[in-house]
Amino acid sequence: MAVEPSRTGQPTDQRTGYDVVVLGGGVIGWSCAWRAAQRGLSVAVCDPSPGTGASHVAAGMLAPVTELHPGEEDLLRLNLAAARGYEAFAAEVEAASGLGVGYRRCGTLALALDAGDRAVLAEAQDLQRSLGLDSHRLTARECRRLEPMLSTEVTGGLLVEGDHQVDNRRLLAALRAAAGRAGVDLLPERAAVRTADGRAVGVELAGGRRVDAGQVLLTAGAAAADVAGVPEAARPPVRPVKGQILRLRVPAPLRPVLSRTVRGVVRGAAVYLVPREDGELVVGATSEDRGFDETVTAGGVYELLRDAQALLPAVTELELVETAARCRPGSPDNAPLVGATVVPGLLLATGHHRNGMLLAGVTGEAVAALLGGDGLPEHFAPFTPGRFRTPEPAGAPR
Amino acid sequence: MAVEPSRTGQPTDQRTGYDVVVLGGGVIGWSCAWRAAQRGLSVAVCDPSPGTGASHVAAGMLAPVTELHPGEEDLLRLNLAAARGYEAFAAEVEAASGLGVGYRRCGTLALALDAGDRAVLAEAQDLQRSLGLDSHRLTARECRRLEPMLSTEVTGGLLVEGDHQVDNRRLLAALRAAAGRAGVDLLPERAAVRTADGRAVGVELAGGRRVDAGQVLLTAGAAAADVAGVPEAARPPVRPVKGQILRLRVPAPLRPVLSRTVRGVVRGAAVYLVPREDGELVVGATSEDRGFDETVTAGGVYELLRDAQALLPAVTELELVETAARCRPGSPDNAPLVGATVVPGLLLATGHHRNGMLLAGVTGEAVAALLGGDGLPEHFAPFTPGRFRTPEPAGAPR
Repeated sequence: MAVEPSRTGQPTDQRTGYDVVVLGGGVIGWSCAWRAAQRGLSVAVCDPSPGTGASHVAAGMLAPVTELHPGEEDLLRLNLAAARGYEAFAAEVEAASGLGVGYRRCGTLALALDAGDRAVLAEAQDLQRSLGLDSHRLTARECRRLEPMLSTEVTGGLLVEGDHQVDNRRLLAALRAAAGRAGVDLLPERAAVRTADGRAVGVELAGGRRVDAGQVLLTAGAAAADVAGVPEAARPPVRPVKGQILRLRVPAPLRPVLSRTVRGVVRGAAVYLVPREDGELVVGATSEDRGFDETVTAGGVYELLRDAQALLPAVTELELVETAARCRPGSPDNAPLVGATVVPGLLLATGHHRNGMLLAGVTGEAVAALLGGDGLPEHFAPFTPGRFRTPEPAGAPR
Repeated sequence: MAVEPSRTGQPTDQRTGYDVVVLGGGVIGWSCAWRAAQRGLSVAVCDPSPGTGASHVAAGMLAPVTELHPGEEDLLRLNLAAARGYEAFAAEVEAASGLGVGYRRCGTLALALDAGDRAVLAEAQDLQRSLGLDSHRLTARECRRLEPMLSTEVTGGLLVEGDHQVDNRRLLAALRAAAGRAGVDLLPERAAVRTADGRAVGVELAGGRRVDAGQVLLTAGAAAADVAGVPEAARPPVRPVKGQILRLRVPAPLRPVLSRTVRGVVRGAAVYLVPREDGELVVGATSEDRGFDETVTAGGVYELLRDAQALLPAVTELELVETAARCRPGSPDNAPLVGATVVPGLLLATGHHRNGMLLAGVTGEAVAALLGGDGLPEHFAPFTPGRFRTPEPAGAPR
């Protein structure tokens, strides 16, 4: 995308400051920048290679129900709100950008191979029901009626009609285009945060140029903890959670190989297959705590292919188009970190872990409200960075 | 490589003819072109994308003994002669090009996992011994003493000290450079053979330009059967044999993960692991009769990774750098087709199947002798295209 001139008409390389400088050009960064610009703020996004991080290799599942983990009920509420609003969000991004985002109301089918898997599905359904969520147990025959190419080893499933998908790469491109149209500048450089008198006052670009900012927003995903210049007390407790993912192509005679997202747990490892309308099939993902490592390994690819085949034998016939690895931003409770830090003028929007695509819209709106002076919306209250702050000692140790 | 001017000093695009025009810029084509130029012939190689076919994705095994198949004794003699001369060939290519070819006298270890595999190795050794070839049976312990990272499932092996390797990509680049230095022109276009009065007289390039040739040599590998303008009676009976192959990278702490080529038969499928000195590990290869199909499939990659891991569990830790598929030129008896055709002025050098790297040197010399008027060397007599010619009917059917 060509960077459009900012609304002030000043060329990008002449501007000395913005209301908001965003560090990180993934879906969260572009969504926040777009929404902030819509509120009339002048905004720049700094990223030496925007749109090439975790957002680029995500699968685009919008799956609050099938991604539900026990103990994450606060996150569930946020995820459900995001899912309910996704159709409107997608439509708004498409209208603002003129680009499609591939939002697909396809539902998700979670599969079981053995009795242990069926027990896991039953527990998942119990949890879902206790929270008022909708899902349907299916027999093996019913699963294959929905998806005729499933393995004959499949013994049952759980259909979640409301867990959909978006095309992560198209969403990324559209958000970036919408932001550009709204006047957001791209500064394609690495940047360090600048502080003065204990508050964030802007950034210094890798080339040495200083850009002032009324507020600085960190949206650098798993790299947010490593941005230079961030005071220790404001540094987000995010860790890289490596994910490897494959992109397959379904030859025309086999289309559609699947009509909805299919997922399962094979030998203890979760695998999902997300079919795009254009014949792409995304297979993900490993989840590895190995530090900042973005290498594709023979073992990671092998396990994804093995487990995907166990659910859908026709995988062997598909073209392997791409292998990739990136790091998700994981937080201590797997929920995002959105809001002000202890450093005035420095805000966070990171830690979205497996839910970056799903939460891009609501995060952008919430952060823009905060940047615009309206405060963080109530439903983001459980996700402020303050929840991980070590309390000050109350007194001398006894 | 920049195309050097031909020795006549005439710019390439001005020349109307050559003594020899070679169709196909793989190792066979460049080797033949180089050797022909050394004999004083003017030579051009036509290829729209030279060096991107089967030669590019080969593993570079030089393995007459471990690649021996029953019934292929004629081919064995040729392969053994090529292997004996390889060190001198490699040295000559390196001197002529100024480039290394990665010839590595590392030997090959063929492994057995189960009793069936051990029986196969015993039969292979019997066949080898009956032909006077050298190999040594090793216990599992002896195998792991040579290669400490082998699977504990390995139960024995066969060490062939004389089966080495070359770096196929470096050989390809060096042959091309040597040919360029010797005055060979590259015409980077698809070409059709032109005939007049029943003899080959040159080629017509895709752009329409006609280039005359005293002799035309087809070295287009699996595509040799599909070159336009070749009279039916001279069309080589080669078929595409698809091979998928992986390139892995060994991280520094695991090097060397192997010291020699390792191969085995896992669940009936042959797999080999060829370690380069620079930390690359080539894993090959599938063998698929599917017509001209060069797509990398999920199934092909899966099987190679599965079988490679069965021999060397550390494979899971290696970086997957490249996946590729190309078609080998298979002939009805798996041996090459080298020599004159029924069409005067039209020669063949194709059908090298699994042995293109091994036979590149001897094929280049033999073809150059034929092109230069000395006739095809005696050891190539069993491999002339004439062996597949349908005999003329001797009389009317009774």
